[in-house]
Amino acid sequence: MSDIQVGKSGIRAYAPATIGNISCGFDLLGMAVDEPGDVVQVKLNYDRKVRIIEIVGDGGRLPMEVDQNTAGIAVKALKKHIQKGRGIDIILHKNLPLCSGMGSSAASAVAALMAANKIWGEKLTKQELIPFALKAEAKISGSVHGDNAIPSLLGGIVLITSYNPLKYIQLPIPKKLYVTLTHPQFEISTREARELVPKEIPTKKVIKQNACIASFVAGCYQNNLELIKDSMHDYIAQPKRYKLIKGFSQMESAIHNLGAFNLGISGSGPSVFSLSNDRHLATKAGRIMQKYFYQNKYKCEVYVSKVNKVGAVVLE
Amino acid sequence: MSDIQVGKSGIRAYAPATIGNISCGFDLLGMAVDEPGDVVQVKLNYDRKVRIIEIVGDGGRLPMEVDQNTAGIAVKALKKHIQKGRGIDIILHKNLPLCSGMGSSAASAVAALMAANKIWGEKLTKQELIPFALKAEAKISGSVHGDNAIPSLLGGIVLITSYNPLKYIQLPIPKKLYVTLTHPQFEISTREARELVPKEIPTKKVIKQNACIASFVAGCYQNNLELIKDSMHDYIAQPKRYKLIKGFSQMESAIHNLGAFNLGISGSGPSVFSLSNDRHLATKAGRIMQKYFYQNKYKCEVYVSKVNKVGAVVLE
Repeated sequence: MSDIQVGKSGIRAYAPATIGNISCGFDLLGMAVDEPGDVVQVKLNYDRKVRIIEIVGDGGRLPMEVDQNTAGIAVKALKKHIQKGRGIDIILHKNLPLCSGMGSSAASAVAALMAANKIWGEKLTKQELIPFALKAEAKISGSVHGDNAIPSLLGGIVLITSYNPLKYIQLPIPKKLYVTLTHPQFEISTREARELVPKEIPTKKVIKQNACIASFVAGCYQNNLELIKDSMHDYIAQPKRYKLIKGFSQMESAIHNLGAFNLGISGSGPSVFSLSNDRHLATKAGRIMQKYFYQNKYKCEVYVSKVNKVGAVVLE
Repeated sequence: MSDIQVGKSGIRAYAPATIGNISCGFDLLGMAVDEPGDVVQVKLNYDRKVRIIEIVGDGGRLPMEVDQNTAGIAVKALKKHIQKGRGIDIILHKNLPLCSGMGSSAASAVAALMAANKIWGEKLTKQELIPFALKAEAKISGSVHGDNAIPSLLGGIVLITSYNPLKYIQLPIPKKLYVTLTHPQFEISTREARELVPKEIPTKKVIKQNACIASFVAGCYQNNLELIKDSMHDYIAQPKRYKLIKGFSQMESAIHNLGAFNLGISGSGPSVFSLSNDRHLATKAGRIMQKYFYQNKYKCEVYVSKVNKVGAVVLE
C-alpha cells in the first residue's frame, strides 16, 4: 500500500463493497460485505484545496480531477459544509474494480469522507456524512441512489424508503447469514444495465415482488433465513439483465441445486452473489460461480463473508 | 339474534370483518377489526347433510344452496376432510353487508368453520381450517385469495407471501394503532373493482410500492407508527378504484389534514379506512368519512377499534 505523501498527520479509512438491490429490493436495498473495499489516505495540505494526488489500483482509468471523482466530490462538499480552512491531499487505493456492481464509486466516496472527517476533527457522525456520499454518487451516475453508499458507510443491511426527505431503515442482520460475492473480470456499464430495466412491470409480478421484499424484511426481523431464502427473487431487473452475464442461467441452476439461496446480480453486475445459511455452503457456492465463469473464459475473485456490521472505518 | 333450530347442542361462532390490502399490500395484506362480524350457528342433524336452514340479515340475497354460499362450501369441505358422520344445520347471521369490501364472504366461511369444527369435536386447529376458507372464497370469487379469510380466522395483521404452497406471516401488531373503518351503503362488485386494476405498473411506482410494503413490515416489527404512516400508499389499485367512491378525493385530503394516516379503500371497496395513532384521532377520522359520505347522499356506519388480535371465536 502506497504511503507517499502521508506522513504522521495522515489518516486512512476503509469502506467496504456493497451488494445493491439484494435481488428483491431493486433500488431500495443494499448490504455491506467484509471485503473487498477501498482505502483512502488523506493528509492536510497548505493550499486550502482538496486534491487527489494519487490513485492506486485503477489502471490509470479514474480521473484525478476532484470534480470528476466521487472521492473528490464528496470531500469537497464536506469541506464546504464544515467550512474548514485546511485543504487535504487524497490518495485513493482502488481495491474495488470499476463497473463491477460492487459499489466501487460509493466505497471511494465513503472512505474519503471518513478519512477527511477524521482529519478535520470528526465534526460529523457517520449518519451526517451520508448526504455528501449521495451527492458524489448522483454527480457521477446522474441519479440519486444510496443503496451502495449508505450500507458502505453504516454497514449492515439498509432499506432506503425515501430520498426526499432521505429515510432509511437499518434492518436487523440475521445471525447465520453468509454472503458469497463473486466478481468476474469484465465490466457492465451501469448506464447500459439501467437501460435494460423495463419501464413497466406486469401487475402479477409486482405483487410477487411486493411479497418478496415484505418477506425479506420480516425475515431480517425474525432472524428467519427460510423467509429470506424465499424472498430472493427479482422480477424487475434480473429477467432482462442476466443475459449480460454469460453462463448465468446454468450457474443459477447449480446454486439452486446446491441449496444456497438464489443467485442474484449484485447491483447492475457483472458481480453475482448468493446468500447461505452456513459458511461451508457459501464457500461451495463460490466454487460453483468460479467454475461457470472460468468455463466462459472469465477470471474471477470470490469473497465469502458474513454481512459487514460496522461499515466504513478509520484505520489505526 | 335468531335461536331457531339451535338448542342445547348448538354452537355459535363469530368471525370479524377484515381490511384487505391495507393500502400498501395489494392482494397480500389483511387485518382484522373488532367489529362488525358475522355470526354462524350450527346444530347437528340426523340426515348426514350440511344444510343452510336460515340466513338472517342479508335481505334474502344470499343463496341458501350449500354449494353456492361460502359458509356452506367451507363446512362441506371440512366435513369431507374429517369424515364425520353427522350432518349439520347452519344459521347464518349476516352482520356484514354484501359487496362492502370488508371481507363479508370470508367472515361467513370462517365463522361457519369455527362453529362446525367445534361441534365436530374440534379436530382441527385454526391454522388447519384455513384451506377450507380459501376453497370457499375461491369458488365464489373465481380466484384464490386469503387476505380476508386468514386475518378473519387468526386475527391481527397477516402478510400472505405465497399460495402454492400457502405461506403467510402474522406481523406484530403495533400497540397504539387504531383503525377507522367506514361502510357507505352502496355496493361495488369485486369483479368490477378487479377489472379496474391495471395489467402493468410503471417501474417507478413499483419501486415506491416495494418501499411502502417494506416500510409497513418494518413498522410492525419496530412498533413504529411513523413508518406505518409513511407506508400507507397504494400505487396499484387505488389510483383507478377511488373514482368508484364519490367524494373520495376530498375525504382523502381531509383525513390527511387531520393527521390520521392516509385514507385507503378497504379491499375492493366501497368501505374506506384509515389508521391512527390514537383513539381520539380515529374517531375524528370517522366523522370526516361520515360527513363526506352524507354529502354524497350515502348513509354509512363507522367502526373504530384497535386491530382485532384474536380473530374468529366460538361464542359461549
